[in-house]
Amino acid sequence: MAEAETPKRSPEIRKDRIHNRWVLFSPARSRRPSDFKAKSNPQPNNQRECPFCAGHEHECAPEIFRVPEDSTNDWKIRVIQNLYPAVSRELDFQNTPGTVVGDVAVNGFGFHDVVIESPAHSVNLSDLFPAQVGEVLLASKKRIEQLRNCDSIKYVQVFKNHGASAGASMSHSHSQIIALPIVPPTVSARLDSMTEYFQQTGKCSLCDIQPNELLIDESAHFISLVPFAATFAFEIWIIPRDHSSHFHEIDSEKAIDLGGLLKLMLLKMSLQLNNPPFNLLIHTSPFQDDHLPSTHWFIQIAPHLSGVGGFEIATGCYINPVFPEDAAKILREVRIS
Amino acid sequence: MAEAETPKRSPEIRKDRIHNRWVLFSPARSRRPSDFKAKSNPQPNNQRECPFCAGHEHECAPEIFRVPEDSTNDWKIRVIQNLYPAVSRELDFQNTPGTVVGDVAVNGFGFHDVVIESPAHSVNLSDLFPAQVGEVLLASKKRIEQLRNCDSIKYVQVFKNHGASAGASMSHSHSQIIALPIVPPTVSARLDSMTEYFQQTGKCSLCDIQPNELLIDESAHFISLVPFAATFAFEIWIIPRDHSSHFHEIDSEKAIDLGGLLKLMLLKMSLQLNNPPFNLLIHTSPFQDDHLPSTHWFIQIAPHLSGVGGFEIATGCYINPVFPEDAAKILREVRIS
Ligand SMILES: Nc1ncnc2c1ncn2[C@@H]1O[C@H](COP(=O)(O)OP(=O)(O)O[C@H]2O[C@H](CO)[C@@H](O)[C@H](O)[C@H]2O)[C@@H](O)[C@H]1O
Ligand SMILES: Nc1ncnc2c1ncn2[C@@H]1O[C@H](COP(=O)(O)OP(=O)(O)O[C@H]2O[C@H](CO)[C@@H](O)[C@H](O)[C@H]2O)[C@@H](O)[C@H]1O
Repeated sequence: MAEAETPKRSPEIRKDRIHNRWVLFSPARSRRPSDFKAKSNPQPNNQRECPFCAGHEHECAPEIFRVPEDSTNDWKIRVIQNLYPAVSRELDFQNTPGTVVGDVAVNGFGFHDVVIESPAHSVNLSDLFPAQVGEVLLASKKRIEQLRNCDSIKYVQVFKNHGASAGASMSHSHSQIIALPIVPPTVSARLDSMTEYFQQTGKCSLCDIQPNELLIDESAHFISLVPFAATFAFEIWIIPRDHSSHFHEIDSEKAIDLGGLLKLMLLKMSLQLNNPPFNLLIHTSPFQDDHLPSTHWFIQIAPHLSGVGGFEIATGCYINPVFPEDAAKILREVRIS
Repeated sequence: MAEAETPKRSPEIRKDRIHNRWVLFSPARSRRPSDFKAKSNPQPNNQRECPFCAGHEHECAPEIFRVPEDSTNDWKIRVIQNLYPAVSRELDFQNTPGTVVGDVAVNGFGFHDVVIESPAHSVNLSDLFPAQVGEVLLASKKRIEQLRNCDSIKYVQVFKNHGASAGASMSHSHSQIIALPIVPPTVSARLDSMTEYFQQTGKCSLCDIQPNELLIDESAHFISLVPFAATFAFEIWIIPRDHSSHFHEIDSEKAIDLGGLLKLMLLKMSLQLNNPPFNLLIHTSPFQDDHLPSTHWFIQIAPHLSGVGGFEIATGCYINPVFPEDAAKILREVRIS
């Protein structure tokens, strides 16, 4: 009978108390074989045709603003409309009848924008100086503040896809902003869970975090760590030290400080894991938040080292082969020269 | 300024009332370009080494049972232990202290099995006769009934990964069974949502479904349809006509009937979408279910035509470029010769 080498550590099931979901930690899983040929990481095509590059502005959907505001050919960041939006800014937000009695459908009203993070095609977010990363963050902040003026918008998601297996269809460094007329399910679950923690302890769950062996690095205003019940192997969270519910409350000084820590985390991850595909997510609160003392915004960086399968889709439980303490130790010790 | 061709239909946001989550429908999304070279669908390696093939039984983790029970070399189905389990049947289920005060961790106790669906390497589930597909379903039923005897097990997930981008690491036709000491988050959300529907209407939400233009096909005991708020393009649900909370309540006659409809759906999907990677999930109820009148088991078939990105991970909202009515019409009309 075949026997797998005994893993050093038994599997453990941990609860992510921020999202109120369970994660299965199982080192044995990392040793399973695959009889599929290695997935090639798709490489970008020839880039002479990229609409996000400087000089190709006319190939893009309309611009919302650029940084610096009065720049011409020398822009550093552009926030533009998404040409193939998931939601439409041209619809009125209103209920429309579903096709089946009892079903609920609303018009797909909302805003879907793209933040072009650099005019040059082959510059990654982690190649920018800390202050430049800070400017990218401040561009998202500015756009969120504009979207806040629209009464129908309840929640704004900022996210970045890097690499084809993390979903990216464009290789030019960019992130996206989707503003929705609903509060999405994962966001509601997070708010409910954080509020419950507050009701039980009188404290905000992220203010109360004791990173200990999960800590990676720190800056003046932020800490970075691997969460206790990380969904993905080598997942990183960056959390503001001071209580703050909304990402858009960030000021310029903190944005530059965050830019430095974010850059460091991206460099460490890239060096240790060989430039993996990843998602970067800004988890903030809905505009209308009745639980300000319990909600605390943070950034999640989720590398994609393996795909997900039916179990995760069916249950919402993820399987992570790397214990967070081990991932944190490795990331803590990566030296950036 | 670039302009995307005006889509025929405006985006819509629909609520999946079974899972209590929102899905964004946006036909415009399907026309967005990608500057990554097409992802090659990884093909399986040479298969002389497959441990799931007849004659290689000794390369597998221990067998739990086979079908027929008294078969030797002529087995049709084998249910075996997973050699690289996500949870361990050797642990005692008990609470272990988390590394951080307030965090929750339990031993990773549970069962992780593999159902080898055929002795031959290149036979797919949809190649089997309806009665044989029924036997595969009955093997899962039998295993669930065994697992039910373990007091600590709360929920059993049966799932199948087909194709590398749906997560499969083994190409030989198989499914997996994971038995957990917790009720997973997506399952709790589904139960809560179905119970709420019952409390509001006095009816089970799946008994009450009016498929109309969403219907694909029917059999004596089951219907197949595209759900009103499908998470994935061309997603299919197969629902028992009669109210039943637990998949393991299925009898042989119904299993054969289901085998026929499931085979038909897999063939239609494969023909229409060119053998896409997919997951097949059996959504059943926890063993201990206090809401039997409101919970109803069903099968979900989720083809993977595009990956997911940061937006889905952050929000739990999926973006589906194909309206369910359109997918249902296409699948209804596929002719299997
Ligand atoms: N000329 C132009 N002007 C303006 N915008 C342009 C443009 N050309 C392309 N775009 C837009 O640029 C965006 C690039 O985004 P990404 O590469 O991060 O992933 P994408 O949104 O395609 O999908 C990934 O992310 C989403 C959300 O997570 C998932 O649904 C999906 O499966 C995954 O592949 C696209 O949304 C595209 O519509
Ligand atoms: N000799 C042997 N004896 C017994 N068992 C053997 C064996 N050799 C291999 N196995 C097991 O066979 C299983 C094959 O399963 P799949 O191909 O469906 O996907 P896998 O579980 O690898 O991961 C996919 O599904 C899981 C769950 O959805 C995701 O976590 C993951 O990311 C995704 O790739 C593996 O679990 C493996 O451990």
